[in-house]
Amino acid sequence: MIHLSLIGIGTGNPEHVTLAAVRALNQAELLLLPRKGEAKSDLIDLRRLLCRDLLEASSRTRVVEFDLPCRDARADYLGAVDDWHDAIAEVWVDLMATHLPEGGRVGMLIWGDPSLYDSSLRIAERLGGERFREGGLQVELKVEIVPGITSLQALTAAHRIPLNALAEPVLITTGRRLRERGWPSDAESVAVMLDSGGAFQALPQEGLTIWWGAYLGMDKQCLIDGPLVDVAATILERRAALRERHGWIMDVYLLRRV
Amino acid sequence: MIHLSLIGIGTGNPEHVTLAAVRALNQAELLLLPRKGEAKSDLIDLRRLLCRDLLEASSRTRVVEFDLPCRDARADYLGAVDDWHDAIAEVWVDLMATHLPEGGRVGMLIWGDPSLYDSSLRIAERLGGERFREGGLQVELKVEIVPGITSLQALTAAHRIPLNALAEPVLITTGRRLRERGWPSDAESVAVMLDSGGAFQALPQEGLTIWWGAYLGMDKQCLIDGPLVDVAATILERRAALRERHGWIMDVYLLRRV
Ligand SMILES: C[S@@+](CC[C@H](N)C(=O)[O-])C[C@H]1O[C@@H](n2cnc3c(N)ncnc32)[C@H](O)[C@@H]1O
Ligand SMILES: C[S@@+](CC[C@H](N)C(=O)[O-])C[C@H]1O[C@@H](n2cnc3c(N)ncnc32)[C@H](O)[C@@H]1O
Repeated sequence: MIHLSLIGIGTGNPEHVTLAAVRALNQAELLLLPRKGEAKSDLIDLRRLLCRDLLEASSRTRVVEFDLPCRDARADYLGAVDDWHDAIAEVWVDLMATHLPEGGRVGMLIWGDPSLYDSSLRIAERLGGERFREGGLQVELKVEIVPGITSLQALTAAHRIPLNALAEPVLITTGRRLRERGWPSDAESVAVMLDSGGAFQALPQEGLTIWWGAYLGMDKQCLIDGPLVDVAATILERRAALRERHGWIMDVYLLRRV
Repeated sequence: MIHLSLIGIGTGNPEHVTLAAVRALNQAELLLLPRKGEAKSDLIDLRRLLCRDLLEASSRTRVVEFDLPCRDARADYLGAVDDWHDAIAEVWVDLMATHLPEGGRVGMLIWGDPSLYDSSLRIAERLGGERFREGGLQVELKVEIVPGITSLQALTAAHRIPLNALAEPVLITTGRRLRERGWPSDAESVAVMLDSGGAFQALPQEGLTIWWGAYLGMDKQCLIDGPLVDVAATILERRAALRERHGWIMDVYLLRRV
């Protein structure tokens, strides 16, 4: 039996982990830390730091790093993602078979919250769907989710703003979707994640306010807010400069019609 | 100078508090705990428990409970809410003037995350807008937000599901809105909060799956999921029975077109 914990760790601020996450980290016999390549080494650094600071001396937890397979950049986005998830599932199975041949408790440190634009649950389903073979052994999988503070919560907290207007809905969407569909008809507040850059340019700028944040929770955190007409260009310039300087960027923003 | 921390505490599971929240609780000189009446006494109980378990012996924190003013049940919903927020702001000012006449650090334990369908930030704005008088003293206000795990995250974690379908948007809305507007055109996943009961009945039931949860994170947590056509009646019955038994209920659900 494999007990897999997907442990939300927040998105940069090490103090955003919950007590439940601290407990789950310490209860794991094996923690698997993905390496996403040099450019994004800050992401593995935070995971290493959490393991170092939060694992108690008495814990039996073994920390193992692995290289995350790369995703095909091919045009068929969903197909490429599907293949990628298969490849990651295979790596997970290998690692578990190697380090926990008798089964046991495995933990994964998940960026933000495991339920928000994260693939770990879908990868875990692949393992669970049909019991997977592991050195000839049939293994049963039990999955547990430990929620974590999302980048969106780090954004609203840093700007000291509510996510929703009073009693009003909020749409959480992606940069890709915003470009394709424009402003939605059902919400006056729209949170945008996974934007490769400036999807808000596809919108009529008038009457929108933006709260933007990059590297939230980290030392290099950067915040900009204001009427979109006034700050859109500044955000695009700053984003390009920061990306250039640090080699990678993650940003998220909230738009509101006001 | 008043330093006000709005501290997200999760929605029932005491282990859902973050390390940042623990620190903020201990740094406060004054913690204000709202009492919402007998029926919802579980809510004050969790706050008391957190103070008891998380405040270190060395902390100078003073815990003060107060009765939250009641909201008018009048038809003009937004107007009633506005007056209510004014009344709460007045109570806050009185409490701060009484217990921190020289200024200092005040903390509020906020259910879930302070950015999601919570009024504390709007109430705090009332204090900050024009510096408020406090025993004849001009006081400046600094607000800090400590994010917390939302009921929606407790829901998805408990059901072990993602909030969004792969790369797709999610609408977070209220029961009231869902009744008024029906299924939105911009999202295949809809999370519903603040539902006084069964707003999903206003929707065509076919083709929707629901993941429902009440009292999330608490001992009396209750989960139901399945095709809406199959489980809608069960949820309504269970909701009524639980509400009857416990004297109050809070529930949240995710609907997905699948
Ligand atoms: C694959 S999603 C993962 C989201 C994560 N599960 C969460 O709960 O926030 C990655 C996206 O999250 C946002 N993001 C994650 N961490 C961030 C950070 N520290 N600062 C700004 N945006 C961040 C960006 O929009 C990025 O494109
Ligand atoms: C005023 S809103 C506050 C939301 C809170 N700030 C959060 O982050 O979840 C109250 C609504 O949150 C949801 N809720 C809060 N706590 C809950 C719990 N323990 N179980 C189920 N739903 C909950 C319900 O939909 C309820 O009507």
